[in-house]
Amino acid sequence: MYDMNMELQFHSGKRLYEQIYEHIRDEIRGGKLFGGERLPSTRALAEYLQISRSTVDYAYGQLLSEGYIEARPCRGYFVCRVEELSMGKNGAGEPDGPVEVVSLEEGGSVSERAPSDILYDFSPNGLDMSAFPFGVWKKITKNILNESNRELFALGEPQGDLDLRRTISRYLHASRGVECAPEQIVVGAGNDYLLMLLEKILGRHVGIAMENPTYKRAFNIFRSFSYRIEIVEMDESGMEVDKLRAKDVKAAYVMPSHQFPTGITMPIGRRMELLKWAGEEEERFLIEDDYDSEFRYKGKPIPALQGADTMGKVIYIGTFSKVIAPAIRISFMVLPPRLLKRYREECYFYSSTVSRIDQRILNEFIRDGYFERYLNKTRKLYREKHELLLQELAPFAERFKISGENAGLHLVLTCLDSGAREEELIGKAAERGVKVYGLSDALVGDAPLQRGATLLLGYGGLNKPEISEGIQKLKQALL
Amino acid sequence: MYDMNMELQFHSGKRLYEQIYEHIRDEIRGGKLFGGERLPSTRALAEYLQISRSTVDYAYGQLLSEGYIEARPCRGYFVCRVEELSMGKNGAGEPDGPVEVVSLEEGGSVSERAPSDILYDFSPNGLDMSAFPFGVWKKITKNILNESNRELFALGEPQGDLDLRRTISRYLHASRGVECAPEQIVVGAGNDYLLMLLEKILGRHVGIAMENPTYKRAFNIFRSFSYRIEIVEMDESGMEVDKLRAKDVKAAYVMPSHQFPTGITMPIGRRMELLKWAGEEEERFLIEDDYDSEFRYKGKPIPALQGADTMGKVIYIGTFSKVIAPAIRISFMVLPPRLLKRYREECYFYSSTVSRIDQRILNEFIRDGYFERYLNKTRKLYREKHELLLQELAPFAERFKISGENAGLHLVLTCLDSGAREEELIGKAAERGVKVYGLSDALVGDAPLQRGATLLLGYGGLNKPEISEGIQKLKQALL
Repeated sequence: MYDMNMELQFHSGKRLYEQIYEHIRDEIRGGKLFGGERLPSTRALAEYLQISRSTVDYAYGQLLSEGYIEARPCRGYFVCRVEELSMGKNGAGEPDGPVEVVSLEEGGSVSERAPSDILYDFSPNGLDMSAFPFGVWKKITKNILNESNRELFALGEPQGDLDLRRTISRYLHASRGVECAPEQIVVGAGNDYLLMLLEKILGRHVGIAMENPTYKRAFNIFRSFSYRIEIVEMDESGMEVDKLRAKDVKAAYVMPSHQFPTGITMPIGRRMELLKWAGEEEERFLIEDDYDSEFRYKGKPIPALQGADTMGKVIYIGTFSKVIAPAIRISFMVLPPRLLKRYREECYFYSSTVSRIDQRILNEFIRDGYFERYLNKTRKLYREKHELLLQELAPFAERFKISGENAGLHLVLTCLDSGAREEELIGKAAERGVKVYGLSDALVGDAPLQRGATLLLGYGGLNKPEISEGIQKLKQALL
Repeated sequence: MYDMNMELQFHSGKRLYEQIYEHIRDEIRGGKLFGGERLPSTRALAEYLQISRSTVDYAYGQLLSEGYIEARPCRGYFVCRVEELSMGKNGAGEPDGPVEVVSLEEGGSVSERAPSDILYDFSPNGLDMSAFPFGVWKKITKNILNESNRELFALGEPQGDLDLRRTISRYLHASRGVECAPEQIVVGAGNDYLLMLLEKILGRHVGIAMENPTYKRAFNIFRSFSYRIEIVEMDESGMEVDKLRAKDVKAAYVMPSHQFPTGITMPIGRRMELLKWAGEEEERFLIEDDYDSEFRYKGKPIPALQGADTMGKVIYIGTFSKVIAPAIRISFMVLPPRLLKRYREECYFYSSTVSRIDQRILNEFIRDGYFERYLNKTRKLYREKHELLLQELAPFAERFKISGENAGLHLVLTCLDSGAREEELIGKAAERGVKVYGLSDALVGDAPLQRGATLLLGYGGLNKPEISEGIQKLKQALL
């Protein structure tokens, strides 16, 4: 429960309920209180603040009506899980995964976007941090600061500290089959930043091929560059290489391990075709976003495309924001030699965006085996949720095709009735308090969806009872 | 002294001196050992490792000959202050101040760039971190991690956490006369990143006016954008506004508090002219880089240009990397309302590049008064060095005009002999073991220097005896 550290001004001229309302509203907006967090009961807060309960009631009423919080019968008041409040700030948000992009003026009312009756949010961005070893993280941090590490306060290398790059290189080799020297790794504060850097390396005004649907966040970032984005159709194996060949592009952005949002794992044949395409010209590259490759439930782990690349064609991008915690603003990219040279020549003056202290903490967290242990625990958690969700969804087989079930943190439900409309399905679910997401959100360009109405159900941010309850409600809504 | 944590492999087949050599070389390259740091004596290291002293001698000899370390008579072995080793990694390096940009392949020999006879490096980038309250920083970090702040591991707001933005806004108001709401502040991981973000906000292919000489790092960054850089002449008050008016540019980049490298403080008249220029068209802006405004020795502190702007024309950029520590990868920019709107509309999907934990540490460091105290101590330190340097430079008045003496961390010496050449003066100083820097390094475009040979003497990274000794040597070289 939220630790209330509110101080009321009894003689400020501002009414007490307003002070409480503003304090909590600001805590929500400022990200101190986040989606799903329980507020103190009105009685507890009134007692704590030594004021009348009706004053707290009034403040909560205001927050309710504006959509900042919601009341759950017999359970109390909770902060709404509204990503749009301030963009992925809620606990389930994550920076380098897909996020619906909404620009909202600070101070704007959120009531329209925060229906207070959403009880189960199947956001594909949801993460489960319950297994995160806060204690270990604290211990490592303390030890690092306790040593006489004055040099940690100096500026590090532009590419990131060598120790961390070595650790990442070993980790990538062992777990993802990525072959790279530490020299090829560039560490940066998040995928967005690394893509900005990549813009400088690949050059301006280049064409980039993307699948459709695709990871909308990457699309928005490329669009904000001076890039010409070419949409390439995809089939059940991913981007179609003959269609790609018809486009004048320098690079193709793909997610071979687990395409977002379709969940497709690109088979080896398609991978080789893509590599062949890239090999046909010196200045052709593949951008491999391996955003959630850690989570795979069926079959052997599939090595990264990068590992099959013998010609220096793949730019591999990975992040610790998704597998450790969104606040860990550490991503990395692996540059092929040709682009590494260009980076060194043209971008090496950009200072590192990650503090050496944070790099060192992460390095020890991985090096000393805590990362592997955490990952195993998290995989187990997600696997259990994943199996539960699949099991609960069994009755849906009569009306939906379920796919994307081998990896990642969401499932894909495609409606078998050709007449069904996505918005309609989403609306019906919302009426029962369940938030599901449409695949159409991930469409780019003008082409309409080439398949039946399709829903995305993420399960990372919900616990098991919530998944079961949510799917029961969804059944009432859709079956 | 460096804490040697070397472990020798006695049966690895690799010779012991090679292991020692490689270990120390990697520590230097990796930034663990940094410029100016003293190595253990050969006897101490031999004793510690339980090997013969001649083995250590041999390893040190190799490092000496490759330019990684230097021997100072009667004082021992020191890591070379070679910024080029891995770009500003040495203790004196700093990310958001002027850095000579050299791209060097990792693993390349550095012997040419590291003459082992440089004893006194008057780098304008030198910083003195001796007063940095490491203990306080550790205490704040521990307290933050000890509280049950799980939400700190969630993703923060794209602009930076509201608490920190409030604190920065108050600080800017009180110390720099900057008028802004927390909503206008965008926090980011370093100036370089913020300029990359600004590129997205200002638009592509725009013209940017810069003074000449100017801050080369900003020049290189703008050049790496799709920007057309227009060089505008400057007089003794800074950028000449009538010359600026002749250029087709959207923004002018200036450092009104303390121009780098000339040290000019822009008078109020010129500031008003610049604001008037910007006011003449809706889409004209001034980029105010207030990089070292904290350090002023004469006269009243001069408020930022931003504070005089009533029309929303100034983009103010500041950093904590220079005033706290280079590793603190936290800079900020203040956007005028028109550009804030564009940022919210077009760039709000870029995730924050600074972890919430780091933001919170900085917030408490400032909020609880530690920053102010540290700043006062550092100001005192720099003032003492500054006065000492001026005093030691008194005999130079016969041959040099000394300027830029009111603020910042370097002085400017312009040679009165019209025949003198910068490289010659720098070479003569180097022969005496003194490294000074030429103003020409900060020239952009093709125009030659419009003044006599000019040297920059930074004093941040040297202690007082070093300043006195260095200037005595410089006197022998140049007078």
